[in-house]
Amino acid sequence: MWDEIPTFVEMKKDKQKEHILIIGAGLCGSLLGLRMVQRGYKVTLMEKRPDLREIHQDAGRSINLAFSDRGMKGIKLVGLEEEVKKLCIPMTGRMIHDKEGNTFLSPYSGRDNEYINSISRTDLNIMLLNAADQYDDLQVYFNEKCKDVDLKNATATFENYLTKKQQTITANVVLGADGAGSVVRKSMYLSKEFLFSFSQDYLEHGYKELTFPPAQDNEYRTEKNALHIWPRGRDMIIALPNLDGSFTVTLFIDYKNAPDSFESLNSPETITEYFNRQFPDAVPMMPELVKDFEENPVGPLGTIKCHPWSAFGKTCLLGDAAHSIVPFYGQGMNASFEDVVVFDETLEKYGDQGWEAVFTAFEKNRKPDTDAIADLAVDNFHEMKEHTAHPMFQEKRKLETAFEKEFPKEYSSKYSLVTFNDNIGYREAMIKGRAQNKAILNLLDDGKLPDTLSLKAKLKIVQQATNAIIHDDEVGRL
Amino acid sequence: MWDEIPTFVEMKKDKQKEHILIIGAGLCGSLLGLRMVQRGYKVTLMEKRPDLREIHQDAGRSINLAFSDRGMKGIKLVGLEEEVKKLCIPMTGRMIHDKEGNTFLSPYSGRDNEYINSISRTDLNIMLLNAADQYDDLQVYFNEKCKDVDLKNATATFENYLTKKQQTITANVVLGADGAGSVVRKSMYLSKEFLFSFSQDYLEHGYKELTFPPAQDNEYRTEKNALHIWPRGRDMIIALPNLDGSFTVTLFIDYKNAPDSFESLNSPETITEYFNRQFPDAVPMMPELVKDFEENPVGPLGTIKCHPWSAFGKTCLLGDAAHSIVPFYGQGMNASFEDVVVFDETLEKYGDQGWEAVFTAFEKNRKPDTDAIADLAVDNFHEMKEHTAHPMFQEKRKLETAFEKEFPKEYSSKYSLVTFNDNIGYREAMIKGRAQNKAILNLLDDGKLPDTLSLKAKLKIVQQATNAIIHDDEVGRL
Repeated sequence: MWDEIPTFVEMKKDKQKEHILIIGAGLCGSLLGLRMVQRGYKVTLMEKRPDLREIHQDAGRSINLAFSDRGMKGIKLVGLEEEVKKLCIPMTGRMIHDKEGNTFLSPYSGRDNEYINSISRTDLNIMLLNAADQYDDLQVYFNEKCKDVDLKNATATFENYLTKKQQTITANVVLGADGAGSVVRKSMYLSKEFLFSFSQDYLEHGYKELTFPPAQDNEYRTEKNALHIWPRGRDMIIALPNLDGSFTVTLFIDYKNAPDSFESLNSPETITEYFNRQFPDAVPMMPELVKDFEENPVGPLGTIKCHPWSAFGKTCLLGDAAHSIVPFYGQGMNASFEDVVVFDETLEKYGDQGWEAVFTAFEKNRKPDTDAIADLAVDNFHEMKEHTAHPMFQEKRKLETAFEKEFPKEYSSKYSLVTFNDNIGYREAMIKGRAQNKAILNLLDDGKLPDTLSLKAKLKIVQQATNAIIHDDEVGRL
Repeated sequence: MWDEIPTFVEMKKDKQKEHILIIGAGLCGSLLGLRMVQRGYKVTLMEKRPDLREIHQDAGRSINLAFSDRGMKGIKLVGLEEEVKKLCIPMTGRMIHDKEGNTFLSPYSGRDNEYINSISRTDLNIMLLNAADQYDDLQVYFNEKCKDVDLKNATATFENYLTKKQQTITANVVLGADGAGSVVRKSMYLSKEFLFSFSQDYLEHGYKELTFPPAQDNEYRTEKNALHIWPRGRDMIIALPNLDGSFTVTLFIDYKNAPDSFESLNSPETITEYFNRQFPDAVPMMPELVKDFEENPVGPLGTIKCHPWSAFGKTCLLGDAAHSIVPFYGQGMNASFEDVVVFDETLEKYGDQGWEAVFTAFEKNRKPDTDAIADLAVDNFHEMKEHTAHPMFQEKRKLETAFEKEFPKEYSSKYSLVTFNDNIGYREAMIKGRAQNKAILNLLDDGKLPDTLSLKAKLKIVQQATNAIIHDDEVGRL
């Protein structure tokens, strides 16, 4: 796809360059800026934080991500496929740790080429910023806090954290890629000129980052190529590998009003007792457990949705600014990168009709999918902390893995549809994936998939039941 | 129930009277104030609008409501059952008007005693305010705009619209019954001390009020005892009777981006052409159509949900402040009145554990039900404007009405469960009602309810299919 797009030099000849102001140079804004400059626009990227190539930030906040196919589509679009691979650690499945310290690996797919990757948010962002530096027509400014957005006139005012100087920039359009706390979205929310639907939904749980440091000689303390989960019903810890031999560990637990909570874990004794009781095999891997726990902040887990994403044909939201999701499907960054791909396709298709047409078509096409991944991500929280430990859930996963292994072209689980089938949207993946789950769980519950049946026969029964569920839901919608 | 509660005089002896500050003297706040003073509290009610017994307000905003069983439960609680009946006009079903001017009545229930009532919002509010005037310990102040709420200290500041004087009131607790635009809720939203989940969701449609004035001698221009609907797929008008022989008519149509919309209906010609094309039999009943259309404002249709409803054990939201819903189930006021009933029961049960326990238990018990009615109300929009005109939907309704008539104790439709079965909550009504709908529609679609079957046999098949749907959903949730 990359090869088919006219190069920057060719496009420059054709038209007066339009100026795009992108607010936010995180993962989404950087990728978007790169793609826009490649398409021949003049791009200004304004970032409120310092340049993370100069100043280390965000210690104690979850910093590794699960990079997968939808994210790769975005990276390919800007030609950085080979670069990104150097940052990736493949994770082939979930390694489940029970209370007795037993482990088993639940593969993400029955197909060998389907796995996700642990990647550092910082390393990925640096890669994108370095790539951006190659373009004269893409300028990135750091420490620039957006104070105000004039939605109608594609104008924004910034204040520099260091110099305190203010500046106002007017562009042809403003793209808000300024994340979950988006200032651009907030100015839409406050606008009196149109109705703005908006939701922020917090889980009762918060998260805290911990760590398994590398063992001697930078060895990994547990299986490197897996996403580790200690599911305990209401709470859990997870661990993802880093390139240096460490794991980033995250605890998810209620804020309060639960037997164990961030409120109740308020002393070295209660912290130690809780971890020894719930995660005994993880404790020896966390020599600095109490110190990390006491020093690192608690983060909230929220979902944000809104509508419309654009205003006056002049301003549009992308990425977390338009849709923030909880991290449990490992799809937040992937969804944002896929936004850039869809936005790019929309620009290709509707660009000659003007920005308003592009923005409207982009949201219309994209929002059903980002709404779906938001809901799927909340589902997956319950799946990870609770269902992964349930025998019937495990039986379902085994059956699905066998289907994928034996009939790789005929079956994909919900996880696989969401994560590895970037040819279909999240919404289609959700509808089909949920129906499959419901079909298998009910067939198992009713004893309708006995071992006497061949795997092929089981697949046929599951497919028929899945189609019946989808059909009945459609008819029942009247 | 009313008789069992100790009277005000008896309770006063027992304890130092606590002071309850209620913000908002609309329907919910007035009923709540009445009930609280009856329980022996000292109550101050602060209302931002003028006293509607003195100044007529809200012309052109939808002012009649569908009063039904859940609302009556609240009215009974304060002993105003006989008073309210004088204000009610029974509506026994939906009168559907097609484009050719044909009408048919779709009863709300097969049971004769199950109907809803058209009632004037203003008359109902006046009745409650007049009742409130009977209590020395209940003071109502009008024209008092709430400027600020101190959630932690049960303190609020008001400014009088007329005198511009400010006053600050501190009470034992503040109850926010200040409606969809709640200032109390807004101060929770802005608090940095806790996570506040919040959503506002607007439909693409807005509404505008119109009227069928009385005919000669105050006769009704169409059937008095029905809720009239002109369903046209994307848009519709409805009409509800008033005591004076008029009908309040409401148009629901897209704001913009549709073949017909508030944006496109921008001249006497376009307005007249649209009504003649879509609602020809209604036009003769609207002699002032163009004038009303041009003078009356367009209102938005939004759903608001939030969590938590209370803060610091000092402040709690009730009614529309906690949950605003679209009007299509006729349940907004009924849900708010039922809030007061549930709040009263919770106070009875947990009152001795303090206000924080009461507020927490109230929300935990009530929120699943108000979330459900919010979703049901949006469903009903699509049902009213679109599905009521669909043959299979009509067939379903006929069958359900027959079930209710012949087997009144064995079957209640979703509408009946929501509207007339106040012994079960909205959530239970939703789960059962949706499953029944899905069962019947699929059975009809599959030809599994042929006329050769007896009604009893059909009922049994529907009940079995409904239970199977509920069971499969539960198993599939893993």
